[in-house]
Amino acid sequence: MTRAASGIIPVFSIDRLVPTALHRQIYNWYRKAIMEGMLRPGEQVPSTRALAKELGVSRFPVLDAHSQLLAEGYFESRTGGGTFICHSLPEHFMQCAAGPRLTSVHKSPRKIAGRSSLLPPLESSPWVREIGPFGVGQVAFDEFPIQVWSKLIAWHSRNTNPLTLHYGEQIGAMGLREAIADYLRTARSVRCDADQIMIVSSSQQALEISVRVLFDFGSPVWVEEPGYGLARDAFLLGGCRLVPVPVDQDGMNVEAGIKRCPHARAALVTPSHQFPVGSTMSVERRIRLLNWAQESGAWIIEDDYDCEYRYNGPPTPSLQGLDANARVIYIGTFSKVLFPSLRLGYVVIPRDLLSRFLAVHRAMDLGPPAFFQNVVADFIREGHFGRHIRKMRNVYRHRMGALVKSIDGELGSSVEMSGSEAGMHLTIRLLNDESDVEIAYRAAAENLWLWPLSTAYLAEPKSPGFILGFGGTPVASIQPAICKLRALIAAGKISHRDKRLIC
Amino acid sequence: MTRAASGIIPVFSIDRLVPTALHRQIYNWYRKAIMEGMLRPGEQVPSTRALAKELGVSRFPVLDAHSQLLAEGYFESRTGGGTFICHSLPEHFMQCAAGPRLTSVHKSPRKIAGRSSLLPPLESSPWVREIGPFGVGQVAFDEFPIQVWSKLIAWHSRNTNPLTLHYGEQIGAMGLREAIADYLRTARSVRCDADQIMIVSSSQQALEISVRVLFDFGSPVWVEEPGYGLARDAFLLGGCRLVPVPVDQDGMNVEAGIKRCPHARAALVTPSHQFPVGSTMSVERRIRLLNWAQESGAWIIEDDYDCEYRYNGPPTPSLQGLDANARVIYIGTFSKVLFPSLRLGYVVIPRDLLSRFLAVHRAMDLGPPAFFQNVVADFIREGHFGRHIRKMRNVYRHRMGALVKSIDGELGSSVEMSGSEAGMHLTIRLLNDESDVEIAYRAAAENLWLWPLSTAYLAEPKSPGFILGFGGTPVASIQPAICKLRALIAAGKISHRDKRLIC
Repeated sequence: MTRAASGIIPVFSIDRLVPTALHRQIYNWYRKAIMEGMLRPGEQVPSTRALAKELGVSRFPVLDAHSQLLAEGYFESRTGGGTFICHSLPEHFMQCAAGPRLTSVHKSPRKIAGRSSLLPPLESSPWVREIGPFGVGQVAFDEFPIQVWSKLIAWHSRNTNPLTLHYGEQIGAMGLREAIADYLRTARSVRCDADQIMIVSSSQQALEISVRVLFDFGSPVWVEEPGYGLARDAFLLGGCRLVPVPVDQDGMNVEAGIKRCPHARAALVTPSHQFPVGSTMSVERRIRLLNWAQESGAWIIEDDYDCEYRYNGPPTPSLQGLDANARVIYIGTFSKVLFPSLRLGYVVIPRDLLSRFLAVHRAMDLGPPAFFQNVVADFIREGHFGRHIRKMRNVYRHRMGALVKSIDGELGSSVEMSGSEAGMHLTIRLLNDESDVEIAYRAAAENLWLWPLSTAYLAEPKSPGFILGFGGTPVASIQPAICKLRALIAAGKISHRDKRLIC
Repeated sequence: MTRAASGIIPVFSIDRLVPTALHRQIYNWYRKAIMEGMLRPGEQVPSTRALAKELGVSRFPVLDAHSQLLAEGYFESRTGGGTFICHSLPEHFMQCAAGPRLTSVHKSPRKIAGRSSLLPPLESSPWVREIGPFGVGQVAFDEFPIQVWSKLIAWHSRNTNPLTLHYGEQIGAMGLREAIADYLRTARSVRCDADQIMIVSSSQQALEISVRVLFDFGSPVWVEEPGYGLARDAFLLGGCRLVPVPVDQDGMNVEAGIKRCPHARAALVTPSHQFPVGSTMSVERRIRLLNWAQESGAWIIEDDYDCEYRYNGPPTPSLQGLDANARVIYIGTFSKVLFPSLRLGYVVIPRDLLSRFLAVHRAMDLGPPAFFQNVVADFIREGHFGRHIRKMRNVYRHRMGALVKSIDGELGSSVEMSGSEAGMHLTIRLLNDESDVEIAYRAAAENLWLWPLSTAYLAEPKSPGFILGFGGTPVASIQPAICKLRALIAAGKISHRDKRLIC
């Protein structure tokens, strides 16, 4: 491996008051830095000219030190390409510096916050974020209009100026906020103006900011059961008490929520396309939810994460658009409709809360890079966004159709399917009591990424099943993947021994 | 103004069961959407072809509706460029939808969190983030190697693939983390490996995550007095109790801190170049601070925000590099050494805390975009970063020299200057009791951006003065700006009436 912190000047200085010769001081410093692991094999060292200039000495002592380090094998030269820390240094030379640091005794124990333990421990669930069938959150990467996108990037990159390099507006770039407001009013019936829109790095950050503006430690909040775990984490970290409220084919069961916790401070909902069940909240439930919020003084946080894709039936306007009392915080993201690594989302904020949202956001982070905000604004304004949505709706409609057909054909009555009317995932429930988590681990070993439905529940009972993302799965890959899934389900449970081997 | 949410399909559907003709339904929807302000003048409407396809109807009713809307002046055509909502709609047609929303009665009051009021109210201080002399945080925008940078951007943009479009690693791109680790070990004597480095959006976010991992509500924390207000906000929002500890020419006065609050949970310091005073923490103080942390079980948060630029004396290694007990959280940013809108920073985390930092970060936000992480990694690896630092050090050295000379010549003994050995700002104290805030407001009206020193204090007494950033101020602009400043100081206090006029 070639690693080179090319030409970074090391942090050392010459001491002219000690009797040690200059070249010896330089030699000693390099040797010590290498032996202590501060400089690593393969790193490039600065040129003798640059180092001499930096140290304010003539080049001769630096050349002397370099020669000696080369001769002793600490340095190596590459023809035509500078001087490097030698790759073949004996192992025992390299005492990795960071290792022993932590083994030393801590005189007083280091205290950490109680609140960070509110979060569940980090698990490296293999089904999250891998690429391949049926990873959730994947978009059709191959269909993204890279040419158009690259042209916009090149244009903005060439047109850099002090304004684009300096801190941008905390609330987000005006051009993007206007484009989003136009889009949301037209396509989502959201009642908003550009001045109510704050650009954030993700819907996750929008949730996080909302939690800190709206709730206190111990505030009860309704969450969908099953629901999206990462969203719940933002509430947990904020000290909220989660109240799981069951969802069915009409979305969150508002009556059940009122029975369980009538004075909750908020409800977190995905009304357009419930995650993970895939249902759309009925108009009756929407009105009931809004009325409850109005009567009890609660907030509604609407996470409209993949509202753009609906394959049957009329489009569903946002819940926010029905609200006459500024009770709804509307959250959207570009992760699904463009691509996840863009890291751009937005939140529509009731006007009287704008300064609170801004103050909290500013204390956390000064807003996402302006560069991609400007690129996305142009992408929308120039019509590429509308075209892309229309094109992708067809792509996903085909993928969804193929998936439903495969599931019907291969899995038939052994599973129950839901959520195939919209979005980029559907859900199947296992009708026996197999462990979906164990199957998911085995599937991961075969590059099949199954998000176990049971992990989306907060409380018992946890229905087993899988959340199947098809956004990144071309039609041709669907049938073979479902066949694999059938075999995995049929193979039944796996022993703990085997599971350990796989993990 | 031309605004066009080009070709976004509106959220409406055709009802075939009502007796209203299709073209009338389409006409009615558009008219209502325009009158209610959901569609705004200048927005482009979808083509008749696209809308017909979307609605699943023939083009004729859509054409009929369009003709009528055009005839009645709701729509306007542009030659060669589609159909738009008419610009010249009479004012009374446009009932901005969002306005009346908030005026309706809230049946139950909407409760917000107590904790968000822990933050000071948002002020639109004009001296923050404006471009021109002497805005703090500005870099020499004109000296940034845009050519090289654009080439790297173009390369990465052309080489997009599913891996680069999908969610990246939460902890950050490995290439960048390795490049940073090499750089920090070499140039800053930080003891670290790439696996301890987490990429964040800013040093602000690094502080925010640290606060949530390390401290609980009510945890006392030493902060520098004077210090950086935005950093304090992260601690305030996290419920910490701030203990101001005075700084002098040797950095934070550790003995004073121990006297005021011996059992603080942490100290937040800027040892390389104190913000705003500009002093470098002495070795004695560093050792005293580390020993206190070791004895009391406290943490040290080292914000090394502009360590790259030092003009006199030997380079100062990091405090983290002196620490043998994993007590230091080391925070760095690319905002000063590259440019602020990049929104990339990093934090070096003791190994045993890695999973806590990751869990908190994941609940807040899934990490900054991978794109610029990869660009910066290449920029470092290919040697541009080292070259840029060396070049900028000369640029800033000249600007600093010109500024010191101007201050000496123009302001002379009426001010006391500090912090001219390093970084991108220096500080002058006013020796009379002028109000620095009032002068700063008057200066802003003349495009001179003076950050009042008094606002950097948490408690009384608050010395008046100015933090003068020279990073973005070319040598030729310095003398005229200081002359302006002299006139402003001489003009003395401003009446409240005048101040109101300026604000």
